[in-house]
Amino acid sequence: MRATLLTIGTEILFGSIVNTNSVFLSRQLNMLGVDVLRHITVGDNRGRLLRALETSFEDCDIVITTGGLGPTEDDLTKETIAEFFGVPLKEDAEQLEILTSWFAAQNRVMAPNNIKQAWLPEGSEVLPNPNGTAPGFYLTDGKRHIYVLPGPPRENKPMFLDYVAPKLSSHEDGYLYYKIVRTIGIGESDLEMKLMDLIDGQTDPTIATYAKTFECSFRVASKRPTLKEAQDAVEECMVKIRKLVGEYIYSEEDRELLSVVLDMMKKKGLTLASAESITGGMFAKLITDIPGASKVFQRGVVTYSNAAKISELDVSPETLEKYGAISAQTAEEMVRGLSLYSGASVCVSVTGNAGPDADEGKPVGQFFVGIMYDGKVTVREFMARRKTRDDVRSLACTEMTKMVYNILRSID
Amino acid sequence: MRATLLTIGTEILFGSIVNTNSVFLSRQLNMLGVDVLRHITVGDNRGRLLRALETSFEDCDIVITTGGLGPTEDDLTKETIAEFFGVPLKEDAEQLEILTSWFAAQNRVMAPNNIKQAWLPEGSEVLPNPNGTAPGFYLTDGKRHIYVLPGPPRENKPMFLDYVAPKLSSHEDGYLYYKIVRTIGIGESDLEMKLMDLIDGQTDPTIATYAKTFECSFRVASKRPTLKEAQDAVEECMVKIRKLVGEYIYSEEDRELLSVVLDMMKKKGLTLASAESITGGMFAKLITDIPGASKVFQRGVVTYSNAAKISELDVSPETLEKYGAISAQTAEEMVRGLSLYSGASVCVSVTGNAGPDADEGKPVGQFFVGIMYDGKVTVREFMARRKTRDDVRSLACTEMTKMVYNILRSID
Repeated sequence: MRATLLTIGTEILFGSIVNTNSVFLSRQLNMLGVDVLRHITVGDNRGRLLRALETSFEDCDIVITTGGLGPTEDDLTKETIAEFFGVPLKEDAEQLEILTSWFAAQNRVMAPNNIKQAWLPEGSEVLPNPNGTAPGFYLTDGKRHIYVLPGPPRENKPMFLDYVAPKLSSHEDGYLYYKIVRTIGIGESDLEMKLMDLIDGQTDPTIATYAKTFECSFRVASKRPTLKEAQDAVEECMVKIRKLVGEYIYSEEDRELLSVVLDMMKKKGLTLASAESITGGMFAKLITDIPGASKVFQRGVVTYSNAAKISELDVSPETLEKYGAISAQTAEEMVRGLSLYSGASVCVSVTGNAGPDADEGKPVGQFFVGIMYDGKVTVREFMARRKTRDDVRSLACTEMTKMVYNILRSID
Repeated sequence: MRATLLTIGTEILFGSIVNTNSVFLSRQLNMLGVDVLRHITVGDNRGRLLRALETSFEDCDIVITTGGLGPTEDDLTKETIAEFFGVPLKEDAEQLEILTSWFAAQNRVMAPNNIKQAWLPEGSEVLPNPNGTAPGFYLTDGKRHIYVLPGPPRENKPMFLDYVAPKLSSHEDGYLYYKIVRTIGIGESDLEMKLMDLIDGQTDPTIATYAKTFECSFRVASKRPTLKEAQDAVEECMVKIRKLVGEYIYSEEDRELLSVVLDMMKKKGLTLASAESITGGMFAKLITDIPGASKVFQRGVVTYSNAAKISELDVSPETLEKYGAISAQTAEEMVRGLSLYSGASVCVSVTGNAGPDADEGKPVGQFFVGIMYDGKVTVREFMARRKTRDDVRSLACTEMTKMVYNILRSID
């Protein structure tokens, strides 16, 4: 299966918003074994939309569109796709009822032009949209398949996952089932080496590794006549995989490490506190991005200046004088001070240089992470390979998370 | 002028990275008065790249490409563009020398395939790349203009700003000069109303407003036979604009509010501290994203739990009991406590509900910002219209920044 992603939206051509739909959909499609050959973004323009459809179907059997399904005159995605497939638009009685009830439920008056949202190309299959007024649809002439989704991510993501992905999984003969497995502490080539025997000679299930920023994951996929058979084949393969690389796996459900860490801490009844210098609140921000983080993460401090390190965390002025703020010694005193005054079961500290210039003679990219649990402190030194401010700070947060994870793994 | 942005990069089709190049370039081009008609992304594939060039030049006179200029076999952007324009690739002696010195300066051995990076289409004009090994180039047949840039943002951004933008400004007759002016405290329609007389009947300079998330900016642009004349025309118009909406303008150089705030504080010799609940470190993170923030921002606390609010900021348990953590009273006590123990000249606090569920009976999206300067506390209540966790937290950070800005404006 080969696909083009077609985004319809002027805001993207203005650079006002980032095309996150294409990122999400590309990732999902690749995981489903669909090759994404191109992305195209055009405005609400009939001619350019038709031309994009034409080009896309030259080498793809699937086109997925997002956007342009609003109720205004500008929005002409549906009309243009119907024209391309040579079918008329028809009012869908069921959709009109859903639309009418939606407005009633929200105590809002339905404007006449909203009725347009209940019109669909003849022969199309509705993709329900419980999160908005514009239904999506699927249309095919047997050879060319188009999935038409609304633009807002909170509408098109669930629509893709609930309706498009299952259809794609059974597009050709059989059902696809896969797992995304995430690892830590092993590089892509080592991972491939350890899985070599399984990867070589594989036909089904297949194993494909993906290097992501700071970590490596892999996909185990199977396509069988029934979903049950595909699931069984993947699980059977996972048993072998766990034997070979189980110690590196932290999630078999494609979850973020930080979210796994929070769950582990919740289960163990542990609390976490952070003292940040170089990352300036980024670590706390990432944790509190996750709903429900408050059960585990109760407080953090951002001690950006030396004065703050001294007054908030009892770092000694002599240590700062002798070793500098960017040192293992300072990281250690920060985490000891944090533990003392926060009482959290796991404490983590970080200090370093995110650039743009060398600081205290310490190079850009150097940082130290301290961790304290059960009275014991460990400090590790790191050097970021990529040196932009954001790269260094992101890596520091990742290494903090990894060190917390490793502590948690060591606790029975 | 009409342009297509053409990205060459498999990572984008895999969804591994976000296409930030297209965002940056779209914004820049629109500011330069170039209509961006479409974005296309393809992999390193000769056929699809040729087809994309063909489609793009059907209705555009300009194509800007990024990516695919690396030294490996995969990278075939140059070859394909040369083929499309019907010219051969030739080794550029000057580029080869630059490349050789670049490797020598880095103490690295130049691999034979790097020589490929000194080959350019005959008749093209080099766009220098001081930040990497791949030069860009500009090629035209008089009617079709192509600008070919490397993929990494740290290479293509300066190349665009230093070489492409000036060329585009003088692409047709005359030179374009513009200013991006940012405002605060006024909506797009009010802004347009106040500038009505200038906007109506405008031919040159032109004024166009842009609503961005949480604020509104506008562009004042002029195209004249010389750059000096264009600059003078914009400045003359700015004099009138400042009279009409000067009180709302916070930057005439398209700068972020937070960065303007930091500069104002630096100049006034003031320091800033933050106490965050709902935003969980996001405000501190945004400040410390800016290099040199440490002069102004010395410390922050993230008091996510009630216990932390009590022990870190002396919020009284009675207040938390009676009004709840999400209340004006708590925001006030947070900022008072922060001021007391941090000694910072400006203190800001925030508490609220980012969702996903109602908390203490407080609806998702409600938050309170407290600010303290010179012994005086102000607290304001807000309700986010968009309710995703990230939207609410981002809005809270913006409102915190605005309140700090307004305090600074009130100080002589």
